[in-house]
Amino acid sequence: MHLKLGFIGFGNVAREFVRILEERREQLGRNHSLTWQTTAIATGRHGCVLSGRGLDLSAAVALVESDRSLAELPAARSVATPFEVVERCDANVVFETIPLDPLTGQPAIDYIRSALARRIPVITANKGPIALAHRELRDLARRFQVPFRFEGAVMDGTPVFNLVERCLPAARVLGFEGVLNSTSNLIIELMERGETFDAALAEAQRRGIAETNADFDIDGWDALTKARALANVLMNGDDRIAGIERDGIRELTRADLKAAVDKGATYRLVARAIEVEGSISLRVGPEQVPFGSVLACASGTSNVLVLKTDLMGEIAIFEKDPGIRQTAYALLSDLLLLSSSEFKL
Amino acid sequence: MHLKLGFIGFGNVAREFVRILEERREQLGRNHSLTWQTTAIATGRHGCVLSGRGLDLSAAVALVESDRSLAELPAARSVATPFEVVERCDANVVFETIPLDPLTGQPAIDYIRSALARRIPVITANKGPIALAHRELRDLARRFQVPFRFEGAVMDGTPVFNLVERCLPAARVLGFEGVLNSTSNLIIELMERGETFDAALAEAQRRGIAETNADFDIDGWDALTKARALANVLMNGDDRIAGIERDGIRELTRADLKAAVDKGATYRLVARAIEVEGSISLRVGPEQVPFGSVLACASGTSNVLVLKTDLMGEIAIFEKDPGIRQTAYALLSDLLLLSSSEFKL
Repeated sequence: MHLKLGFIGFGNVAREFVRILEERREQLGRNHSLTWQTTAIATGRHGCVLSGRGLDLSAAVALVESDRSLAELPAARSVATPFEVVERCDANVVFETIPLDPLTGQPAIDYIRSALARRIPVITANKGPIALAHRELRDLARRFQVPFRFEGAVMDGTPVFNLVERCLPAARVLGFEGVLNSTSNLIIELMERGETFDAALAEAQRRGIAETNADFDIDGWDALTKARALANVLMNGDDRIAGIERDGIRELTRADLKAAVDKGATYRLVARAIEVEGSISLRVGPEQVPFGSVLACASGTSNVLVLKTDLMGEIAIFEKDPGIRQTAYALLSDLLLLSSSEFKL
Repeated sequence: MHLKLGFIGFGNVAREFVRILEERREQLGRNHSLTWQTTAIATGRHGCVLSGRGLDLSAAVALVESDRSLAELPAARSVATPFEVVERCDANVVFETIPLDPLTGQPAIDYIRSALARRIPVITANKGPIALAHRELRDLARRFQVPFRFEGAVMDGTPVFNLVERCLPAARVLGFEGVLNSTSNLIIELMERGETFDAALAEAQRRGIAETNADFDIDGWDALTKARALANVLMNGDDRIAGIERDGIRELTRADLKAAVDKGATYRLVARAIEVEGSISLRVGPEQVPFGSVLACASGTSNVLVLKTDLMGEIAIFEKDPGIRQTAYALLSDLLLLSSSEFKL
């Protein structure tokens, strides 16, 4: 299968994905019969380009990483906005990884909507659209019979959505609990070792785990957005989320953490979903979890998701210290599922 | 899709699977377009029967559970052996769950071989055939283009084989470590609470976790068999397993366990696979693992498998306190994968 790729967003994740594609070109051709060219790249600061003849992906990575414009690419035709890219690109799969407003999911939702409505399959690593517009986008994808995949929205390339869809058929997810925010988790670990909250946050920022403005992580919004995405997809939650409680780790003190340790426990920022009488309640907040529990074993930047199911009881999937490569792998795994014989492109 | 089911082995797992099928008949018809009849059941002590018109599965369960012969089933035609059942059954999927010699995998391997050679898809929950004859059976299945699935061979219905095959495309498994034997794990937990080895073993037997002859579990054979199955399938290990070390928990003392606890650790019977210069080494033995590690969090009868991969780093999948229903679910999940549009029956 020869694919024409379009990139809406060409940041760290997309560029790492390009590096994987280049490294694995031979393997992907041999084992997955996959070849590709790139017909569109849209960025926020380095231009938006199209080419029917194909763009040089490695050259595009080099241009963006030396802060130059994609308009310098051979055979590139510049357009004004990512919207024009979506509207005019001749791609048969679009990777959407644009920076977004985490509370509205925009402009990612609009780009995805636009692509799906043009019958272009979409792969996104953004959680916002799945948390805030899952049902609309899923229904649009179904109406136009076009694949829409988003494994990277939660826990990077660790199978979460694909795990339930592809490996747990007929089982119903009754609820879940997860440690989903690496920044909060790392801050808790550093505070347990004696750092103040502020010093721990600064260290998380120094390591590139936390953003300059880390409020979204620290105040529980990131974990809540992921929990909404999980509840929408795994529990058919779109219209059934009746209650949301959100708390972050800002008020957590070293004294709290020490008191927990003395009881054989530690704190985690836990995201929970439960279903009661047809409604789903989400709760994100710091909780004491016993040493030795599955939630506690997600220390540092690791994540874990515990799924409670009817037929398969309780299982958990754990991701150790994810980096950018694991997020990029989400795009690759979705691409390979989408290009396998099960899906029609 | 209307399936004709054959059962080779009709023990606890197969009968629990039948209960799930009956409970979920409406859901499986509606969501998976699946209907079925049963054309063959082979048991060791309750007869072997065939019927072109379909056997009453619930009646078959009741007969076996009251220790009566399946020959009493309406429309049943008795034959002498499970081999005759495989040879003469008009099934389009066979569930193989016969008791087997764990060190040879027989007679399960012969039954599976016979079914595949007749182009009958096989689903097994037995680890022996995957540990001891995986390559031959896989090649046979490929030659006759017939599905062969075995999710239940390791960690019951927890996705392990399907996880890698269906959710981690293009990623290579470089090695793994797992806590895979519930009996050993439970004995360690009980000994940590102060029981002697013998008392802990008796308690595990009383709870139905350990067999009357628990040597296979305690001496590491069960974990080794599972590790071989995992290495064969996930690491293409069939001909590359160069070194095997096996030790069990028989020599472990309460003093050992106490010394570990004093260091902030606990013991687990750990199965490890590593690849060095193209060869795979397997090692099963008791190891000290730190509290808070992923291996340690598999306490009691829980299991965990840590996969080390190239593209996705390290992920783990955890199964909490599995029961017979989780093993039976493995058969259902394989059946649903096999009957989905990806596979041709």
